[in-house]
Amino acid sequence: MEMSNLYRKENDTLGEIKVPASAYYGSQTQRAVENFQISGIRLPRSFIKAQGIIKAAAATVNMQLGKLPTDKGKVIVLASEEVAQGRWDKHFVVDVYQAGAGTSQNMNVNEVIAHRATELLGGSLEDHLVHPNDDVNMCQSTNDTFPSALNMAAAENLVQRLLPAIQQLQQELEKKAVELMPILKSGRTHLHDAVPIRLGQEFSGYADTIKQSYQAIDSALDSLYEIGLGGSAIGTKMNVHPEYPKKVLQEVCRRTNLPFRQPTNLFRFQQNTGAAIRTMLALKELAIHLIKITSDLRLLSSGPRTGIAEITLPSVQPGSTIMPGKVNPAILEMTHMVCCQIIGYETAISTAGTGSQLEINVFMPVIAHTLLHSIELLSNTIPTLVVKCISGIKADEMMCEKSLEESLALVTALSPKLGYDLSSQIGKQADEQKKTIKQVLHEKGLLTPEIEQLLNPRSMV
Amino acid sequence: MEMSNLYRKENDTLGEIKVPASAYYGSQTQRAVENFQISGIRLPRSFIKAQGIIKAAAATVNMQLGKLPTDKGKVIVLASEEVAQGRWDKHFVVDVYQAGAGTSQNMNVNEVIAHRATELLGGSLEDHLVHPNDDVNMCQSTNDTFPSALNMAAAENLVQRLLPAIQQLQQELEKKAVELMPILKSGRTHLHDAVPIRLGQEFSGYADTIKQSYQAIDSALDSLYEIGLGGSAIGTKMNVHPEYPKKVLQEVCRRTNLPFRQPTNLFRFQQNTGAAIRTMLALKELAIHLIKITSDLRLLSSGPRTGIAEITLPSVQPGSTIMPGKVNPAILEMTHMVCCQIIGYETAISTAGTGSQLEINVFMPVIAHTLLHSIELLSNTIPTLVVKCISGIKADEMMCEKSLEESLALVTALSPKLGYDLSSQIGKQADEQKKTIKQVLHEKGLLTPEIEQLLNPRSMV
Amino acid sequence: MEMSNLYRKENDTLGEIKVPASAYYGSQTQRAVENFQISGIRLPRSFIKAQGIIKAAAATVNMQLGKLPTDKGKVIVLASEEVAQGRWDKHFVVDVYQAGAGTSQNMNVNEVIAHRATELLGGSLEDHLVHPNDDVNMCQSTNDTFPSALNMAAAENLVQRLLPAIQQLQQELEKKAVELMPILKSGRTHLHDAVPIRLGQEFSGYADTIKQSYQAIDSALDSLYEIGLGGSAIGTKMNVHPEYPKKVLQEVCRRTNLPFRQPTNLFRFQQNTGAAIRTMLALKELAIHLIKITSDLRLLSSGPRTGIAEITLPSVQPGSTIMPGKVNPAILEMTHMVCCQIIGYETAISTAGTGSQLEINVFMPVIAHTLLHSIELLSNTIPTLVVKCISGIKADEMMCEKSLEESLALVTALSPKLGYDLSSQIGKQADEQKKTIKQVLHEKGLLTPEIEQLLNPRSMV
Amino acid sequence: MEMSNLYRKENDTLGEIKVPASAYYGSQTQRAVENFQISGIRLPRSFIKAQGIIKAAAATVNMQLGKLPTDKGKVIVLASEEVAQGRWDKHFVVDVYQAGAGTSQNMNVNEVIAHRATELLGGSLEDHLVHPNDDVNMCQSTNDTFPSALNMAAAENLVQRLLPAIQQLQQELEKKAVELMPILKSGRTHLHDAVPIRLGQEFSGYADTIKQSYQAIDSALDSLYEIGLGGSAIGTKMNVHPEYPKKVLQEVCRRTNLPFRQPTNLFRFQQNTGAAIRTMLALKELAIHLIKITSDLRLLSSGPRTGIAEITLPSVQPGSTIMPGKVNPAILEMTHMVCCQIIGYETAISTAGTGSQLEINVFMPVIAHTLLHSIELLSNTIPTLVVKCISGIKADEMMCEKSLEESLALVTALSPKLGYDLSSQIGKQADEQKKTIKQVLHEKGLLTPEIEQLLNPRSMV
Repeated sequence: MEMSNLYRKENDTLGEIKVPASAYYGSQTQRAVENFQISGIRLPRSFIKAQGIIKAAAATVNMQLGKLPTDKGKVIVLASEEVAQGRWDKHFVVDVYQAGAGTSQNMNVNEVIAHRATELLGGSLEDHLVHPNDDVNMCQSTNDTFPSALNMAAAENLVQRLLPAIQQLQQELEKKAVELMPILKSGRTHLHDAVPIRLGQEFSGYADTIKQSYQAIDSALDSLYEIGLGGSAIGTKMNVHPEYPKKVLQEVCRRTNLPFRQPTNLFRFQQNTGAAIRTMLALKELAIHLIKITSDLRLLSSGPRTGIAEITLPSVQPGSTIMPGKVNPAILEMTHMVCCQIIGYETAISTAGTGSQLEINVFMPVIAHTLLHSIELLSNTIPTLVVKCISGIKADEMMCEKSLEESLALVTALSPKLGYDLSSQIGKQADEQKKTIKQVLHEKGLLTPEIEQLLNPRSMV
Repeated sequence: MEMSNLYRKENDTLGEIKVPASAYYGSQTQRAVENFQISGIRLPRSFIKAQGIIKAAAATVNMQLGKLPTDKGKVIVLASEEVAQGRWDKHFVVDVYQAGAGTSQNMNVNEVIAHRATELLGGSLEDHLVHPNDDVNMCQSTNDTFPSALNMAAAENLVQRLLPAIQQLQQELEKKAVELMPILKSGRTHLHDAVPIRLGQEFSGYADTIKQSYQAIDSALDSLYEIGLGGSAIGTKMNVHPEYPKKVLQEVCRRTNLPFRQPTNLFRFQQNTGAAIRTMLALKELAIHLIKITSDLRLLSSGPRTGIAEITLPSVQPGSTIMPGKVNPAILEMTHMVCCQIIGYETAISTAGTGSQLEINVFMPVIAHTLLHSIELLSNTIPTLVVKCISGIKADEMMCEKSLEESLALVTALSPKLGYDLSSQIGKQADEQKKTIKQVLHEKGLLTPEIEQLLNPRSMV
Repeated sequence: MEMSNLYRKENDTLGEIKVPASAYYGSQTQRAVENFQISGIRLPRSFIKAQGIIKAAAATVNMQLGKLPTDKGKVIVLASEEVAQGRWDKHFVVDVYQAGAGTSQNMNVNEVIAHRATELLGGSLEDHLVHPNDDVNMCQSTNDTFPSALNMAAAENLVQRLLPAIQQLQQELEKKAVELMPILKSGRTHLHDAVPIRLGQEFSGYADTIKQSYQAIDSALDSLYEIGLGGSAIGTKMNVHPEYPKKVLQEVCRRTNLPFRQPTNLFRFQQNTGAAIRTMLALKELAIHLIKITSDLRLLSSGPRTGIAEITLPSVQPGSTIMPGKVNPAILEMTHMVCCQIIGYETAISTAGTGSQLEINVFMPVIAHTLLHSIELLSNTIPTLVVKCISGIKADEMMCEKSLEESLALVTALSPKLGYDLSSQIGKQADEQKKTIKQVLHEKGLLTPEIEQLLNPRSMV
Repeated sequence: MEMSNLYRKENDTLGEIKVPASAYYGSQTQRAVENFQISGIRLPRSFIKAQGIIKAAAATVNMQLGKLPTDKGKVIVLASEEVAQGRWDKHFVVDVYQAGAGTSQNMNVNEVIAHRATELLGGSLEDHLVHPNDDVNMCQSTNDTFPSALNMAAAENLVQRLLPAIQQLQQELEKKAVELMPILKSGRTHLHDAVPIRLGQEFSGYADTIKQSYQAIDSALDSLYEIGLGGSAIGTKMNVHPEYPKKVLQEVCRRTNLPFRQPTNLFRFQQNTGAAIRTMLALKELAIHLIKITSDLRLLSSGPRTGIAEITLPSVQPGSTIMPGKVNPAILEMTHMVCCQIIGYETAISTAGTGSQLEINVFMPVIAHTLLHSIELLSNTIPTLVVKCISGIKADEMMCEKSLEESLALVTALSPKLGYDLSSQIGKQADEQKKTIKQVLHEKGLLTPEIEQLLNPRSMV
C-alpha cells in the first residue's frame, strides 16, 4: 500500500506508536507490521470477508441484546460490511507469519472497523469514537473468531470453487470414458504388457477416483460448518451474553447462506484446529490421486515416436527452447507440481497441528494461510486441467491397436484352456524369440481355430 | 521357521529350484524368499486370514459354477480354511518388501493351499494334485485379491480392535471430564495466564476430539468395505465367470460377517489403493490429536516441583537411572512416540500412493504392511494409555487453586466494566510489579465491592 | 503489471497470438500467461538476476567464440545485464506453476532480452532483430540454464542472507550463554525436576545447535556451486561449442564473485536436482532445531504466574484482544510457524524430487520456487528472532532460584553416598508428602553436615 | 523368549514385582515389559552391542579411577562384554515403544549385567551382589548413554554395511556405464522425444548420483562420531569423575576401532538428537534418488511389447499369478517400496525431533529404532539391487536404434543451420503427418548432403 509520509500517533499498553496518517488500522496492527516483516503475504480476501461478516454479526447481536448502543452498533455493522465486501482490503497489512493465534489479524480488523465506524459517526481517524476492543471485539476473542473465520472462508471456497471444479473434472473424465470406450488397447501392470483394456475403462476409473475424492472433501466440509463463535478466550464463554452464541450463529448463517452450526464441544473447537486439519488431509488425498492420474496421462501420451503414444494431448505451447517442434504435457506437469505443493502444505499443517498446547493452537495463522492457499491453488488448477488438457485428449487408434495386438499378455486367454504352465512357456518363448503369441502357437502346432478364437483380444474385454 | 536340511525340487517357468522338503509352499515362494532378504518382516496374521477366506470363497463359488471339480474344490476350501485359521502361518515366508503388487504373497498362499489340498487328497508334497494357479487361483489375480485382502484385514482390525479402543479412550476421557469438572484452575493460551477454566472442561474437549477421530476412521472404514474380487488382472474380469464377482462377494460377507460390497468402479479399485490411503490419513488425524492431548497431559503433570503440576499421573515405573525417585510420564511419552511413527507411516503410504502407474499400484505390499502395522500399534497403545495413565489421573487441587488465584488474566473480567485500556494497564502493572490484580486495584482505589465480586474466579466459568 | 489495452501480434509454431503492445516478452510467454493462471506468484528477483547473468555470460562467450555477431552480441549482453539488475522485472509474468522444467520461464527471459536488444539496436518491439532462441538462447537449453539459475540464486541467497543470519543467531545465543551463565536453576527432563543447570548452559547448547545447522547448510551450499551450463538439452552438449562450457562458467564466476564449478557429471546434474534437494534437507534440519529451541524458550518464559517463568521475553505487542495486559511470545510463535512451513516445503521438494524421469526433472519450477521461498522466509525470520526476542531475554532470578531449591532431583547428589535405593525412597517420600528433600532427610536423621554440603545445588553444576 | 512359569521377586521404589526366575533382567525391566505391550519389536543387536561396550568401558574407567572396587569392576566388564557379544540378547525384552528417553532400555542392560556379574561372583540371580544403578550405571545416565549408544550403533552400521553397499552400487553403475557407452538411443525429456544420448551416459549419471549420496551419508557419519559419555543426566557431568569423560571415550574408541570424539557442547548433545536427525535426512536423500533411478530403469525396461524396452532386466521370478509368462521388475519395485518406507521413517524422526523439550529429547527410542531399521533395510536392499538386477541389465540394441532413428528431436541438429522457427515447423509437420524428419525435409527440398550429415544421430552425442 502506498501510504503518505505523514503519520499520526496512536497508543496502546506498550506506549505511543506512529501510524501512517491515512491508515484505518491502529497501534496494534502497526506493531505487527513492524514485528513481522517476513513473507509479504497476507491472509486472502475470503478470510477478511469472513472476519467482516463475523464482526457485523456480532455487532448486530450485541445491539439486539442491549450491550452495544445503537449509534455505535449501526456504524460498526456498516463498516464491517464494507470490510466483508473488500473495500478496505489494502488496510489489511499483517503478514501471515504473525503473532500466535492471529491476535494481530483480529486487531487489524478490529482497528480498521473502529476507525471506519468513527469516520461514519463523523469523527476523524484520530477521534476513537469507537473502541476496537470494547466495541468492535465485544463478546469476541481472537481465539473464537479466528478459527471460525478460517472455517467460514474454507467452507465458502470449497462450496463456491473447489467442489464445483472437482465435479467438472469428474464429469469431463466420465465424458472421455464414454468417448474412448470403443478403443481397445493393451493394459499394463508393472509397466509390462497386460491383458486388453478399453481406453474408456481407464478413464472411467479416473472419473470414479475423482468422485471418491469429491466425497472425502465434501465430508471434510461438514466439519468446517462447526464454528465456535461465543466461546470467548478459551471456550468458557466468559464476558459473553448467554444469548450471544446462538444468535450470532444465526446471523452468520443468514449472511453467508451456509449451514454453520455450533460445535459439539467448544473446548475441543478451540483446542485443536480439527476441521482445518481434516480438510487438508482430504486435499492431500485428492493430490495423491491427481498425481497418479496425470502421471498416467503423461505416460500414455509419451512419444510421439519414442514412447507409448496411445493418446495425444492438445498443444498449448511450444515445449522446448532448444528442441524445435517439441510439445510437452505442460498442463499435466503443472498439475503435478501443484499437487507436490499441496502434499507439502499438508505436512506444514500437520506439523502445526501437533504443536497445539492446552486451550488453543497458536499456529492457526499458518494453518489458515496454508489451507486457504491450497484450496485456491487447486481451484485454479483443476479447471485449467479440464479445459486445456483433459477435454482435448484424443486416442491414437493406430498405436492402441498396435499395443493390443502385440501384447504378450494375450496368452492369458489360453490359460483356462492350456493351463498356466504351458501358457507360461509359450509366453516366455515369444518374449525370448521376439515372436507373437500366435507365431509360437503355430510353431508348436497348437493354433487350432478354438485357440485362435480365444486369442482375439476383442473377446477379452 | 526351522526347516530341515532336506530339500525337494520344484519347477516353474524359470526352471528347477530347491525347496525345503517339509515346506508347504513351492517354487515361486522359494524364489521370493531368495530374492527378498530385506526386513525379515512378514505380512500379519490378519492379512493371511483374509487371503485364506478369499481362497475358500473363490473355490466355493467356482465349484457352484461348475468350473472347479468338487473333489479338488472341497480340499481347496478345507486347506484355505486352515490357512485362514492360522494353521500354516509358518509357511508364509515372503518378506513384506517383495515383488511389486504382492505377486509373491499371492503365490505363497496359492502354493501352501495347493500342497495342503494335495495332501488332503492323499498325495505327498511332491504330487501336485492341485495346481496353485489353475485351481487355487482360479478366477483370481494378485491384482484383485491382494487389495481385497488388504481391505478385509484392515476392516476387521478396525472393527474388532481399533475402533473399540478409541471408544474406550473417549469414554474414559468423558468420565474424567465429569470427575474433574468441579476443579477450577487457570486456563493457558500461548502458555500464558488465561482466564479460568475447569479441569473437566479441558478433558471434555479431549473426549470430543477423540470422538471426531473415531468418526473419521469409521468413515474411512466404509471405503474399506469395497472389495473388487472378480476384477481379475486389471478390472476387466477376464477369465472370470460372469456370476463369480457377485457370488464370491456374498461368500466373503458370509465368512467374515462384515458388509463388504462391490466397488462402484472396478478399474478405480485396482488403479489406486484409495481406501488404504484414506484410512491411513484418518489414522494420521488421530495421531496428530493424540500428540496434542498427551503433550497437554505431560505439561499439566510437569513437576512435581518445577512445573505446572495441576494433575498427577499414576506411577508405572521408576523414571531415571541416575536421578532417584524420579517418575516420568512414560505412558504418554510412549504414546507420543507411536504417533510419530504413525505420522511417518502415512508419509510412506502416500509416497507409495503417488507411484501408482496405469492399471495397478505395484507398491501395495508396503502399503499393506504399513497400514496394518499402524492399526496394530494404535490398537495396542490406546488401551495401555487408558488403563495405565488416563484412568489414574488425579487433580492436584492445591496447585489448581494456586494457578486460579494468581493468573493475571483475571483482569479480563473487569474489561466490560473498566474498559480494555484501563484493564490492560492494571494487568501490565501487576506483571511488572509482581503483584496480584487485586493488589493493584487496591492501590489504585478501584477495589469496590462490585469489582471484587467480578474478580471472583468462580463466577467466570 | 498494468498493461495498456493495446496489443501487437506475435507468432510461434502454434500460430499467431496477441501480446500487450508494451510487453517486452513475446508469444511463448504470452501462451504461458494464458495457460497458467494458478497462483499469481512469480519466481523471485534472485532467480531472474541469475537468469540475466547466464544470458549475459552466454552471449559474451558466444561472441568470443565467433558464433554470435558482435552487433547482436553486445546488445544481448546489455539487455541481459539490465534484466540481471531488475530493470525489466515487471515483464517476468509467468506463474511459478508453469510448464515442466521451466521452459516458459526460460522463454520469458529469452523474449524480454530479444525485444530489449532489438530496441537497443534501434528497432521496435515488433521488429525481431534479435531472435529469442537462435540468438539469446544460443548454446543453451532450459534444461541446463534453469537448474543452473536455481543453484546460482540459492547460493547467492545463502551467502548473502541466510548464512550471515544464522551466524548472527549463533553469536547472540553465545552472548546470552555468557550473560546467563551465573544463573542457576533446575534442569528438567521429561518436563520433570532434574538436577541443577545454569541457564547459560542451556543457551550454550542452543548456540552450538545453531552452529551445527550452519555447517550443514554451508555444506549444502558447496553442492549448489556445481552448475552445468553447456550441458544443453540433456547433458550431451549438443549444439554447444566445445569451449563454451568452460568459458561460460568463468564468465559466470566473474559476474557473481562466487566459486561455481562444473558438475562431476553433466547427466547427473540434469537428471536430478540434487543440490536443491540437499539444501532443502539442510533447511529442514535447521527448522527442526529452531522449533525445539523456540519451544523451549516459550516453555521457560511461560507464565507470568501460571508457568515456569524462569526467563522473560521483550514485549513486542499486546497479546490478546480480550484478555487485557496479556503479552505473548509472538516472535517465537511466528518463528515456529515459519518452521512448520519450511518442513512442509521440504516435503513438497522431495515429492517433486522422486518424480524425476530420465534426462530431467520437469518439476524444477516448483522446486525453485519452494527452495528460494524457504531461504527468503528464514532469512527474514532469523534476524527478527534475534533482534526482537533473543537479544532481550532476561532471567527471572527469583524463579530460577525457586526451581533450583525446590527440585526433587537434588537427591541425585546423595546417590553416590547413600545409594540409589535409599535415595529413591527419600525422593519418593518428599514427593508424596510434599516436603523438600532436606526435610525428609532431617526427619530420617540423615541430615549430617556432609549430606547438607552435598545437597548444596551450587556444588552440583 | 520362552520363560518358565517360575518367578522370583524383585523390588524397586514402586514395590515388589514378579520376574521370571531365569531372567537376568530385574524389576524395572519387568515393569517396562508389562507397561509396554505395543509392537513386539526390540532395539537391534547393534544397539545392544553398543550398550555393552559402553558399560564395559565405564566399568573399566571407574576401576582405574578408584571409584569401583576391582572385584565388582572385573565382573561387570566381563558381563558387559558378553552383552556386547550377544550372549544375553534374549534377555533384552523391552519394546522399542517404551519409556521416554530409553530409561527402560538402560535399566534392561544395567539389570542384565548386574545379575550376570553377580553370577560371575558366585551369587545367584537373587543375590544382588552388584547393583544395576550404583555399580553398573556408575557415572552414567540414560541421557548420556542412550544417545551415545545410538550414535555408536548407527556409525558401526554405516561403516560396516551401508557405505560399502552404496559403494558397490556406485561401482556397478559405473561398470554398466562403461559397458553401455557404445549404445546410442533417443534421450527423453518430459517423456517426449529428445536428442540422442548414450545408454552409458544415463548410467554414468546414476553412478554419480549415488556417489553424491555416499558423500552426504559419509558426512552425516562424521556427526555420529560425537558421543557425549560423561555428560550425566543433563550434560553437567554431575556425579561424574572429572577424568571420566575423556577416559571412557578412549576406552570406547579402543573397543570399537572407530574415531569417536567428545561433542563440541555436551548440552547440545543431549538437547537434540542432531546426529541421528542429520543421518536420517541423508538417508532420505539417498531414497529420493534411488526412487528416481529405479523408476527410470522400470521405464526403460517397460514392455516387452507395449513399452520402451530399451533395456532388459534379469528374470528373478514369474511375474503374475494370472498372466502366464509375465516377468516384472520385482527387484526395482521392492527397492522403491523400501525407499517409500525410508521417506516415511524420516518423517517419523523429524516429528520426534521437533518434540524435544529442554535438557533432552525423550523420543530417542523411536528415533533409535527408526534410524537403525532404516540403515538395516537399505543395507539389505542395495546389494540385492546390485546383484539381482543392475548387474544383469542388458541393452536391447534394436529398440535403442529404433528410438534413436525415429525421435523427432533430431531436428534440433538443424536449428543452428535453419533456425529455430523453420526447424520447429519441420518438427511439427513430421509429428502431424507421422513422417520422419528426413521425409519432411525431402518433401520441402531441404535435404542437402550437409543437412543429411547434420541429421546423423551418431554425430550428435
